[in-house]
Amino acid sequence: MQQPNPLIVLMTDFGLQDHYVGVMKGVIAGISPLARIIDLTHGIAPQNILQGSLQLGLSAPYFPDGTVFVAVVDPGVGTSRNAITLVTEKQVFVAPDNGLLSSVMNMHRIDACYAITNPSCMLAVQSTTFHGRDVFAPAAAHLSNGIDPATLGNSVNPEHCVRIPLPENSTPDGGLSWQGKILYADIYGNLITSFTDDLLRKKGKKAAGIYVKNGNFLPLRRTYGEVAEGEPLVYRGSSGFLEIAVRNANASQSLGLKPGDNIELKLKPENTQT
Amino acid sequence: MQQPNPLIVLMTDFGLQDHYVGVMKGVIAGISPLARIIDLTHGIAPQNILQGSLQLGLSAPYFPDGTVFVAVVDPGVGTSRNAITLVTEKQVFVAPDNGLLSSVMNMHRIDACYAITNPSCMLAVQSTTFHGRDVFAPAAAHLSNGIDPATLGNSVNPEHCVRIPLPENSTPDGGLSWQGKILYADIYGNLITSFTDDLLRKKGKKAAGIYVKNGNFLPLRRTYGEVAEGEPLVYRGSSGFLEIAVRNANASQSLGLKPGDNIELKLKPENTQT
Amino acid sequence: MQQPNPLIVLMTDFGLQDHYVGVMKGVIAGISPLARIIDLTHGIAPQNILQGSLQLGLSAPYFPDGTVFVAVVDPGVGTSRNAITLVTEKQVFVAPDNGLLSSVMNMHRIDACYAITNPSCMLAVQSTTFHGRDVFAPAAAHLSNGIDPATLGNSVNPEHCVRIPLPENSTPDGGLSWQGKILYADIYGNLITSFTDDLLRKKGKKAAGIYVKNGNFLPLRRTYGEVAEGEPLVYRGSSGFLEIAVRNANASQSLGLKPGDNIELKLKPENTQT
Repeated sequence: MQQPNPLIVLMTDFGLQDHYVGVMKGVIAGISPLARIIDLTHGIAPQNILQGSLQLGLSAPYFPDGTVFVAVVDPGVGTSRNAITLVTEKQVFVAPDNGLLSSVMNMHRIDACYAITNPSCMLAVQSTTFHGRDVFAPAAAHLSNGIDPATLGNSVNPEHCVRIPLPENSTPDGGLSWQGKILYADIYGNLITSFTDDLLRKKGKKAAGIYVKNGNFLPLRRTYGEVAEGEPLVYRGSSGFLEIAVRNANASQSLGLKPGDNIELKLKPENTQT
Repeated sequence: MQQPNPLIVLMTDFGLQDHYVGVMKGVIAGISPLARIIDLTHGIAPQNILQGSLQLGLSAPYFPDGTVFVAVVDPGVGTSRNAITLVTEKQVFVAPDNGLLSSVMNMHRIDACYAITNPSCMLAVQSTTFHGRDVFAPAAAHLSNGIDPATLGNSVNPEHCVRIPLPENSTPDGGLSWQGKILYADIYGNLITSFTDDLLRKKGKKAAGIYVKNGNFLPLRRTYGEVAEGEPLVYRGSSGFLEIAVRNANASQSLGLKPGDNIELKLKPENTQT
Repeated sequence: MQQPNPLIVLMTDFGLQDHYVGVMKGVIAGISPLARIIDLTHGIAPQNILQGSLQLGLSAPYFPDGTVFVAVVDPGVGTSRNAITLVTEKQVFVAPDNGLLSSVMNMHRIDACYAITNPSCMLAVQSTTFHGRDVFAPAAAHLSNGIDPATLGNSVNPEHCVRIPLPENSTPDGGLSWQGKILYADIYGNLITSFTDDLLRKKGKKAAGIYVKNGNFLPLRRTYGEVAEGEPLVYRGSSGFLEIAVRNANASQSLGLKPGDNIELKLKPENTQT
């Protein structure tokens, strides 16, 4: 699985204002000098494990086989939570065992999982607050050098790993409407919902749009260009989820919606007139 | 033109808070594993094509020959706007055809231009909203692998490409004063003007300074150190344009100036006493 | 000392919104095409030399031997301040001579120091405002290519370089209490103090905690998990300094503390009951 120039991808909630991410890269460069390092993002909302899990799960399929991911959103650092390495059919993930790998575990076949406990794969002096530097970055660097993941620690049953599932959608009327949630708002104020676009492909149904609070109804459209500037729409997002946007504006602000808000997806029989 | 480690430079208005830029890099790494990737910036003001064009045009000359640029500021994504590859005498640019390459086209000899339509050079499943990932990143990665740009699609006449020119300066009195605009404010509040420093080299003239609103006159100086802290100045910017700054302060805030504001450059005969 | 893929690390106060950092990387790529470039951070508070010095000093030990650092926090750009290359026992640092290398000089053996004056190691056209691009990036790129640092300019006595020392702690009662300062607040609001954790290892003493303004006393703990959510604590930071935090909250905001504030570290004889 090892490549001549192994690829390590970093995702944290550290932001880029401080030197924390840079120092993690220094540690990696010391252990695995040929590794290429890509930042997925360091803008996960602080300690928001659900958001981190979702963004990691959505992004991983766009990276090559053999990529080693380091994910650190770690409110429990310094407590007894485990550090783990998860090996899927395609890639390897290093993270705290706190649910951050939930989406990855839901979306991919898991081949193995190991605790990270081997001190020879960590920095010699460890802090209680910066395992990104002291534990996770070194583990990823050693993995990118081709060590067997079993070197890091004992095998762990992935069924026992912490999972934070996405909010489940429910359909009280058997498929014509779905109750769900707003998962997160991106930097443009576009709102990613819990409705996957699979719902639109069910036989005999088509989506009409989404009801948000105050009874506002937002129609499903194919692209921004189909509504006027300043008008809201629902569309199949690039990530496979339905998204809510306002053309050339911030939907979160102008519609007053935020992660966690309840929403309702309205479907109708396919032979209905729009 | 291909290098052993081809260089791909990214410029977008995506910001770094979300996973969008990281995912583009994943796509590139999958197609062109040896490519080095540099971020020019992802901080272009959302949908500000003029600003993106300017920053790209100013920056490109500092990158090596053969660099492949991916520029995505793309309010028309999902509409019928074209995606294009522009080949200049030195470098290659992949972008939407919406004016984002205007400055590059003005500053360099254009050798060829192609539409990007070949599905085998894109991701198999394409969204209507994220062509940075689905179209532009793959095209750039294939180019960095050395494919002929003509593989991407049909030749396009660059004269037919969209251009958003910089605001033109005018000189009602034949060269002693110039009417222009503030183009943009950088993160320090320094204001880049539409006046190039060529204006200062015209025979028989020298610049005195710039009038801004309320009749404030800002004198031309060589460097920050020539004015006291908190005092404004005009200087030859690092980009070849005259810039307005306040020493150790934010000129945009303290002078109340913003992009689009009208300004007047005052010149005088060279034998005048300052 | 040279590596097959030399490593260049950048630290500036330029932020990532503009194209400035990207352009520096373009210049490096043109001179040293095989160099790997890592961003330490570009989030140093504008012109805050003390903060830059501290973050650089704390971070450098985590990077491999032979790394070339470029540090640019440079309020005196365009004035007569020198540009220097500092060679330590392990690494090389390129920076303005304004105190930005103070922490590095305090923490490492200095082998040599040179002015950067050789025009053939700079860009041909130099601005008075962007030496990051025109002077420091090219110098670092040439160093990463293996040139002798003495090529850059004359030897300089490092004793004559500008140093901005960290605030000194004082102990009016001979070791049972220490007066110090808050050095800086990171993006989480965690407060790095001027107290190194060496103070806790002095024979016969143990730390009780830190007094902050209004007489609030914050107890020393080993990890966040030892206090309840919303409660403050002092702990040995990952950087070797004592830090003040509030579990799952912003200590700077909730305690009303900021860089420069006076604080008092309270120690007690080791046989005292806590």
